[in-house]
Amino acid sequence: MLPVTFIEDKKRGHEHSQRDIKEFLMAYVEGKVPDYQVAAWLMAVNFQGMTDRETIALVEVMLHSGETIDLSGIPQFKVDKHSTGGVGDKVSLILAPVAVAAGCVVPMISGRGLGHSGGTLDKLESIPGFDVHLSKTEFIDLVRRTGMGMMGQTEEICPADRKMYALRDVTATVKSIPLICGSILSKKIAEGIDGLVLDVKTGNGAFLATYEQSRELAQNLKKIGEHFGLKVKASLTDMSQPLGAAVGNWLEVVESIEVLKGGGPRDLREVTLHLAAWMIALSGIEKEYAEGRQRAQKMIDSGAAYDKFVEMVRDQGGDVTFIEKPEKYPKAPVIKAVTALKSGYLHSVDTTAIGMTAVGLGAGRITMEDRIQPEMGLLMKKNIGDSVDVGEELAVLHAPDDDSYNIALRKIREAIKIREDQTDPPELFYETF
Amino acid sequence: MLPVTFIEDKKRGHEHSQRDIKEFLMAYVEGKVPDYQVAAWLMAVNFQGMTDRETIALVEVMLHSGETIDLSGIPQFKVDKHSTGGVGDKVSLILAPVAVAAGCVVPMISGRGLGHSGGTLDKLESIPGFDVHLSKTEFIDLVRRTGMGMMGQTEEICPADRKMYALRDVTATVKSIPLICGSILSKKIAEGIDGLVLDVKTGNGAFLATYEQSRELAQNLKKIGEHFGLKVKASLTDMSQPLGAAVGNWLEVVESIEVLKGGGPRDLREVTLHLAAWMIALSGIEKEYAEGRQRAQKMIDSGAAYDKFVEMVRDQGGDVTFIEKPEKYPKAPVIKAVTALKSGYLHSVDTTAIGMTAVGLGAGRITMEDRIQPEMGLLMKKNIGDSVDVGEELAVLHAPDDDSYNIALRKIREAIKIREDQTDPPELFYETF
Repeated sequence: MLPVTFIEDKKRGHEHSQRDIKEFLMAYVEGKVPDYQVAAWLMAVNFQGMTDRETIALVEVMLHSGETIDLSGIPQFKVDKHSTGGVGDKVSLILAPVAVAAGCVVPMISGRGLGHSGGTLDKLESIPGFDVHLSKTEFIDLVRRTGMGMMGQTEEICPADRKMYALRDVTATVKSIPLICGSILSKKIAEGIDGLVLDVKTGNGAFLATYEQSRELAQNLKKIGEHFGLKVKASLTDMSQPLGAAVGNWLEVVESIEVLKGGGPRDLREVTLHLAAWMIALSGIEKEYAEGRQRAQKMIDSGAAYDKFVEMVRDQGGDVTFIEKPEKYPKAPVIKAVTALKSGYLHSVDTTAIGMTAVGLGAGRITMEDRIQPEMGLLMKKNIGDSVDVGEELAVLHAPDDDSYNIALRKIREAIKIREDQTDPPELFYETF
Repeated sequence: MLPVTFIEDKKRGHEHSQRDIKEFLMAYVEGKVPDYQVAAWLMAVNFQGMTDRETIALVEVMLHSGETIDLSGIPQFKVDKHSTGGVGDKVSLILAPVAVAAGCVVPMISGRGLGHSGGTLDKLESIPGFDVHLSKTEFIDLVRRTGMGMMGQTEEICPADRKMYALRDVTATVKSIPLICGSILSKKIAEGIDGLVLDVKTGNGAFLATYEQSRELAQNLKKIGEHFGLKVKASLTDMSQPLGAAVGNWLEVVESIEVLKGGGPRDLREVTLHLAAWMIALSGIEKEYAEGRQRAQKMIDSGAAYDKFVEMVRDQGGDVTFIEKPEKYPKAPVIKAVTALKSGYLHSVDTTAIGMTAVGLGAGRITMEDRIQPEMGLLMKKNIGDSVDVGEELAVLHAPDDDSYNIALRKIREAIKIREDQTDPPELFYETF
């Protein structure tokens, strides 16, 4: 099969044979098909989509392009969570210790933040000493011993995905559902897990633009994941405003600690318990979601989840004195509020703009080379539907200097819409299947 | 403007600003934007199309990427013809001398054959000694002195088009109407002509699949050409069977001589007179198409067109004794007929398959590196609508050996459908605008 014929097939909307997909993509991984042919094919996929059979072949090529993690030495059911990312999404930091305290085994491989979305690894690394660079053996040992481990993707897992993702990133072909499916699932399957809970965000801070697209992604992730023998639950959760109040790495760790201690913002608590319930149910520790949710709540109430979090931080080299006394952490030079210019009700939030404002304060990165400043970010003080009085705090900014504060101030005021008429707060989560 | 944002814009169906198009494509020509980003953009253009403003910017970038030919020293109206290509399309060889004999000035820049389509340069080069490699100065002098010249594209004209065409060729992005428009028109405008007659083929041997696509291409070529100050006539002509009988380079020269002497196949004669009439009318030599057609016919009847052809061959180094005595040309080793296996009426011809059969006999090339054998090819003996008796000749093959003949025999029999019920012959030409 000639590469140009393969591209032409996709352009015309024909289904590729699994053999052709494997031949084309393996040749790409081996450097025998050039980037420009793959770029044209990726764009054709953006328009024509891929069938399940095609997506399965894509996952297989990715998977077999590198090493996998063998967790078969751990007899229990292994479960992970994957979120499509958003603003203020620190769920993993709370969810993993809750689920492990409840009896789950959680080998969690996470990513870094890019653009408006934060990343779990960056949040963990804001804890002084915390090391996410574990070898495969260290990771497996840690999971066997403690029931959990949190690390980043290794170079050896799915190199084809890394190569293709880098190309998608510069050719405007990232937001294709089958390509997203292939990328997420190949890495998750390579982790050696048995079950996967998917948190697919929807709303103006989500990766995909519409509810329908998010729903389609969730359904496809479930279907393809199950084809590879995973037990999968996919849940659509809200990202029409930041999750919780904190946006920024250390600020999010602090908020996670609050939730683990039984406090924290209601939305963050609820979404975490919801996903924990599914992890517990998938693992077979409780039969039903409702019982899973109760068990998760108990882990918070009893302090077991918090203790597990402290243990995890210690196990991965983190300085637990910062968890016990978060106030000793370095503060941002400028900590100042953004106040409301008029009264009314908080009508909507441009969530992506809030994320990008936090990035502008130093909390994130635009390119993978940028350095994060862990103490920078912001705390949202109002949620959609809240009443607002003129002069009341909308957010508190943690900024490196006054100039950055002033730029962020304008952006926040633009991103938050206040109206006279009341607005209902959004649902926290929608369908799960 | 970031290249990835530019690609994303096209993916979403937004119109690019002319400034963005120029910036992106100039950066590509200068090697600052990599092939893979342009490949993704080209595929997005295939799906989303381009507006007139965008196509105009594309033409401008192509045009200014290289040199142009300055024919302003020749005071008369300069007119060329461009065909989108097909099987047996030797019109240029007859048309140019007819039009020049009628008083037109024809600086004709042609291409080579690739795949099932033949190319004028290859046909001319089958004449021993004929040289299509003229310098710009030689070409201008020749046109000034004799009213015509026939040469190939020089390296200096529209290098951006050559670079982009090479990329389109390997990324399945050739058949996009705005990209075809940009490619054809930039080269034609660079030639320094005043008028252009476009012969857009339609039918199963044509470059584009449907009548509607060919029509859209013709309309766009006219519109964009006129924007650049060209006088343009675009005609849709039939390519549902080979044009004339001969397919193969020297065989087509011989057939062209027959037409120039007043004989030859009717379809070839008619299409040539049709296009010549428009060239004469565009040039203002006659006011109307009908008078232009009469004048063209006269040039054949009087022998003036044939004389012009002989003069042109001599001027470009060709051995005119082969024109005067075509029978002295080397013959193919195997010249054998393909006969009908049943009686009936010729219902349809797979024109592309006929073209590819001729390529298989040595008449064409699959890649630009292949060598052509000028004496090979075939002569069609029947047209659509003709009655056929069992055992009658359908075609005569000029083959290098018996094996090639046998392979071609099977292909020809497959490509020609004979049915019991009568079929009307197709129209020779459709709309002109």
